[in-house]
Amino acid sequence: MTNTKVVLACRPTGAVEDSNFNLVTEAVAPIKSGEVLIKIEAISLDPAIRGWMNEGTTYIKGIEIGAVMRSFSAGKVIESKNDAYGEGDYVEGLLGSQTYAISNGEGLKKLEMSAGKLSHHLGVLGMPGMTAYFGLLRRGKPQVGEVIYVSGAAGVVGSTVGQIAKIKGCTVIGSAGTDAKCDYLLNECGFDYAINYKTEDIDVKLKEYAPKGVHIFYDNVGGETLDIALLNLAQGARVVICGAISQYNNMGSIQGPKNYMKIVTARGVLTGIIVFDFVQEWPIAVKEIATWIAEGKINVKEHIAEGLENYASTLKMLYTGQNFGKLILVP
Amino acid sequence: MTNTKVVLACRPTGAVEDSNFNLVTEAVAPIKSGEVLIKIEAISLDPAIRGWMNEGTTYIKGIEIGAVMRSFSAGKVIESKNDAYGEGDYVEGLLGSQTYAISNGEGLKKLEMSAGKLSHHLGVLGMPGMTAYFGLLRRGKPQVGEVIYVSGAAGVVGSTVGQIAKIKGCTVIGSAGTDAKCDYLLNECGFDYAINYKTEDIDVKLKEYAPKGVHIFYDNVGGETLDIALLNLAQGARVVICGAISQYNNMGSIQGPKNYMKIVTARGVLTGIIVFDFVQEWPIAVKEIATWIAEGKINVKEHIAEGLENYASTLKMLYTGQNFGKLILVP
Repeated sequence: MTNTKVVLACRPTGAVEDSNFNLVTEAVAPIKSGEVLIKIEAISLDPAIRGWMNEGTTYIKGIEIGAVMRSFSAGKVIESKNDAYGEGDYVEGLLGSQTYAISNGEGLKKLEMSAGKLSHHLGVLGMPGMTAYFGLLRRGKPQVGEVIYVSGAAGVVGSTVGQIAKIKGCTVIGSAGTDAKCDYLLNECGFDYAINYKTEDIDVKLKEYAPKGVHIFYDNVGGETLDIALLNLAQGARVVICGAISQYNNMGSIQGPKNYMKIVTARGVLTGIIVFDFVQEWPIAVKEIATWIAEGKINVKEHIAEGLENYASTLKMLYTGQNFGKLILVP
Repeated sequence: MTNTKVVLACRPTGAVEDSNFNLVTEAVAPIKSGEVLIKIEAISLDPAIRGWMNEGTTYIKGIEIGAVMRSFSAGKVIESKNDAYGEGDYVEGLLGSQTYAISNGEGLKKLEMSAGKLSHHLGVLGMPGMTAYFGLLRRGKPQVGEVIYVSGAAGVVGSTVGQIAKIKGCTVIGSAGTDAKCDYLLNECGFDYAINYKTEDIDVKLKEYAPKGVHIFYDNVGGETLDIALLNLAQGARVVICGAISQYNNMGSIQGPKNYMKIVTARGVLTGIIVFDFVQEWPIAVKEIATWIAEGKINVKEHIAEGLENYASTLKMLYTGQNFGKLILVP
């Protein structure tokens, strides 16, 4: 039995390139006591991967050169020498971008398949969904009647943030990069307003849609988008920094928010979300989101690509906005 | 009786210039019922004045062209038609940069002269001291044993922040622009460490003095100083933005904090202090700070200049770091 895996060949300096990755085939090692062998059926491609490709440690250590590309992946246990997992169980964890993974159970989560299909456990019921849930509810602290603006709104994090905010009684504005994505936000996700940042002036539109300012800005984008949002804060606003996808390929010369003093005059607060801090509470959130999906209150969109040989081209879609929905690679 | 006043002649685009001001002499109007006439004895020159010279409204309206330069000033009531104030009372308020002011009592604070001398009521017992007190205690929330770094530390806000943080059991690091100011921080204010940002590398020194990171960064400076501090945050850090004096003369192209994502990875929070939000509680703070001064726990340094004709040259000292201590102009 052979495993095919995507490894980090070299670190990118700017945008991710095909040459940063190698495809390696190796024999699958026999599992030891306490281990399980997992056949991976779905690999999550998330914006955070670009950060993990840098050297050094931020909230998590950078991927080593030659190591398998880190990813949340999900699959089926096909052999087990660990009492906690039986053959046929579906599991998820940082299992990497490969066809087979061996795990000693550390960080391995058994999936409650009744909550949703496998790919959902990598998206709305996985890390991105948890990021949306805890970032919005614990950091944004939405109140009924407040206005929230979410950037990168058509992504799984953004669309989940907006839909949870709707459930919580907020007016929701989202920005995205195509008319199709904006239509999706309005028609399928129930957003109140959508801004196509490529064809519309975000500042003008925010002043129109949120004349009294934005109470919560949930930012996945950074750069100019963040600066414009800072010009439109309501008093007491919470700025929740989730990501800065506009800057990830540009780490050497990040554009800082030049309007940061607006946080002061708005009596606001800027904070961030590191989803791993809430890992103990994920099961509660998974259950709640699964209920909302079942009730039709949360719409889930996925973009499924196939083949590990397409890893690089698929990953790059995240940073150019080409994917539409949670990006999943089926190996 | 004639009043001499400094008025805003035109708005600066960058640094404050002599030509932004005119000196105007006029007859003092007779006071009406409810008003008091005040002979101003001390004018506070504060960094915020540069912001007030811009057009438009932030937390407070910009000064109108031709209007007296806004300032906190203190003086003696020499005539009163307001029952709340008697002749001989000392008062303080936004009385402007002039020799005489007429007030209807709105925002006028009667000074408890037993708490400290007149100029103190414009500094450590006035707006700057209140900014230090509430910014540190309410936003920074210092805990015993934590490390605090304050930039612009030799100013009245910075030195008061550091000294209160010492009282609260913190390790205190301050940065300033001359060796004399650093000596003052170490020898007269009891700071644990002082960094001369003109001759030392702040990043290197912070890593030496705060190897586990800074729990509170109280920022009066902005720009590069803020960016370096963000690289040195402890987990759970509070970044309190008080001012950005490095950027005030450069409002068109503010340098935003490019390391702002470090707030996220540090599980930190960036917030600000608008001292007017705490105005109801100022008397409690004045009393506490006066006690600390009397006990020798807070050292007060003042830089007294004389003559309204020197308004511009004196104000400019704030933005070039030439003053040493709370800058007061005696008209």
